[in-house]
Amino acid sequence: MRAARYYGPGDVRVEDVPEPKVKQGQVKLKLAWCGICGSDLHAYHAPLPASTCPTKDEPHYVTGETLPITLGHEFSGTVVELGPGVDSSKFKKGQKVVVEPLLSCKEGGCGPCSGGYRNACPHVSFLGIAGWGGGLSEYISVDQDLIYPLPDHISLEVGAMVEPLSVAWHAVKRSAFKPGDKCVIMGSGPIGLMVLKVLQARGASWIGVSEPSTERRKMAQEHQASQTFNPRSEDVVAQVFKATNNQGADVVFDCAGIQASLDLAIKCVRPRGNIMDIALWDDPASIHMNNILFKEISITGIIGYDRVHQEVVDALRDGKFEGLEKLITRKISLNEVVEKGIKALMAEKDTQIKILVHP
Amino acid sequence: MRAARYYGPGDVRVEDVPEPKVKQGQVKLKLAWCGICGSDLHAYHAPLPASTCPTKDEPHYVTGETLPITLGHEFSGTVVELGPGVDSSKFKKGQKVVVEPLLSCKEGGCGPCSGGYRNACPHVSFLGIAGWGGGLSEYISVDQDLIYPLPDHISLEVGAMVEPLSVAWHAVKRSAFKPGDKCVIMGSGPIGLMVLKVLQARGASWIGVSEPSTERRKMAQEHQASQTFNPRSEDVVAQVFKATNNQGADVVFDCAGIQASLDLAIKCVRPRGNIMDIALWDDPASIHMNNILFKEISITGIIGYDRVHQEVVDALRDGKFEGLEKLITRKISLNEVVEKGIKALMAEKDTQIKILVHP
Repeated sequence: MRAARYYGPGDVRVEDVPEPKVKQGQVKLKLAWCGICGSDLHAYHAPLPASTCPTKDEPHYVTGETLPITLGHEFSGTVVELGPGVDSSKFKKGQKVVVEPLLSCKEGGCGPCSGGYRNACPHVSFLGIAGWGGGLSEYISVDQDLIYPLPDHISLEVGAMVEPLSVAWHAVKRSAFKPGDKCVIMGSGPIGLMVLKVLQARGASWIGVSEPSTERRKMAQEHQASQTFNPRSEDVVAQVFKATNNQGADVVFDCAGIQASLDLAIKCVRPRGNIMDIALWDDPASIHMNNILFKEISITGIIGYDRVHQEVVDALRDGKFEGLEKLITRKISLNEVVEKGIKALMAEKDTQIKILVHP
Repeated sequence: MRAARYYGPGDVRVEDVPEPKVKQGQVKLKLAWCGICGSDLHAYHAPLPASTCPTKDEPHYVTGETLPITLGHEFSGTVVELGPGVDSSKFKKGQKVVVEPLLSCKEGGCGPCSGGYRNACPHVSFLGIAGWGGGLSEYISVDQDLIYPLPDHISLEVGAMVEPLSVAWHAVKRSAFKPGDKCVIMGSGPIGLMVLKVLQARGASWIGVSEPSTERRKMAQEHQASQTFNPRSEDVVAQVFKATNNQGADVVFDCAGIQASLDLAIKCVRPRGNIMDIALWDDPASIHMNNILFKEISITGIIGYDRVHQEVVDALRDGKFEGLEKLITRKISLNEVVEKGIKALMAEKDTQIKILVHP
């Protein structure tokens, strides 16, 4: 079968690999769509940490594989084969499914794994970057407990967005957000827009989006942000206070991960409000801690998710999300993954949101 | 009557002032004991923010007073007179009481005041620094809703510690702490020791204290810290992980407010744990936000308290605190407040905890 194989930074090759077998407890899927994620771009630029991705010589702690590995962790597909021990009441051939690609030490019984938050396990990684196959290929075999059936009326394209939606869902769930809250999102890149969708689905009463790029601000407007701000030319703090009856935002979601966005978040959030940090940072942040104290605010962070896929699928089933298809800005074939996928996401970063690959 | 009057940094005078009258809804107290607080020392060194303390020319927003004001906000006393409209079923002459000295805009109906957290009000201040009298005097008249009766079997000396205990109580209450948790305290100055007392009262199963000063470490030991560490010579992180079954601390209370303590807190806390910042900072902190994300931890801050005095008094009544008297390291008279009080707390900061003044 064909697969996009990651050999290291700058080196992704679409080539023939053997089709995976189904082992005990596994389900074999024919892949339908796979999104390209920011961390795929990151891997294309620079090596990922050894805990996440193996090297040519050092096998990954969980998968035991070395490079190359098959890329892609935002995917949907249909069931083609059930391995021994698979619950046949849950999975049937032809059924549409999505996958939570999270790998962790599991059996190791570390605090996070035994505490129910595998995503904070020191060995956390993902199918599609650590080994055991990935979504940018024709087939994959996956442990049944990572697979979630998709309702018939949900398209496989939307299914491929369950994984990034789960990041946003998890962030909102772990934040102090309550239905009716007024929120601000810093940055309307792909994750900022996913957070916008989730906040709408979960009943935010007002959502302001601060984003310097005109194109990205336009996308936030098209996706019904209550208000958008250009932080380079507008007084975002004054506008947020005006929109929140002079109280400040209940929760600010920082999807930018830069000093300016965090500074603004601390000013925009109400006393006892919450700042949820989602974006990975390149540099250390500088924080005047007394501003945290005097407003009694909390700053929290999340990484990935842990078993929220079912909640996202349920919300999709119940029609809680609107206009998700509009987040898909391009569909390409597997052969085009580097030129029209990875490279295009970098070159056209202000206009591309989700590029889906059909393997 | 005699009172310690604050004229500005370096200028505190014990002098005669008129005895306060009781207004509508007020109770007049004869003061028994008043503790000297870190913020009193701060005021002695440098001007406080205008929101907290007036100047000679600019009256305070809430009290309308200008300097000088009477110092002291950690106090206990007995009731000597009830003003008109005071609930006489609650207050009787001769009764021992303590006071929550918190002032805020109240009637202004700002978000924090109407939301039940007056301590985050932009106009928050305190009796004993903003005007309307203070604890370092013979008498004070106070609004009845700020006064909490003290059980007969609790001494007035211990009563004078209800205010700093309330800061620690509020910090523990606003943190993620649950009974049975394993906690670390960074710094065993007065507030660190108060947090130690509150964590013991609320059922922590293990409390480690990190403190570079030998004398202060010894005090933490005398007050039954489970373990103490010298961060200059010991591997605190390794020791905390050893003591917590390799999980990390559930909650870390930063009572030091310096970069080294925060860095250590981030390393010592378990995934999804909480860092509660209590100490005021002099410089901005530098934080690698990815460490917050990958461990999914939260950093929270508190300032003062809001109506937790009753909970502290109830805990005192129920015998939840042990050895509070041992926190009182000296008792002095009002005339000695500068030389044997304020200056001694600075000169002997490693051995003095609470100095109580008898007005």
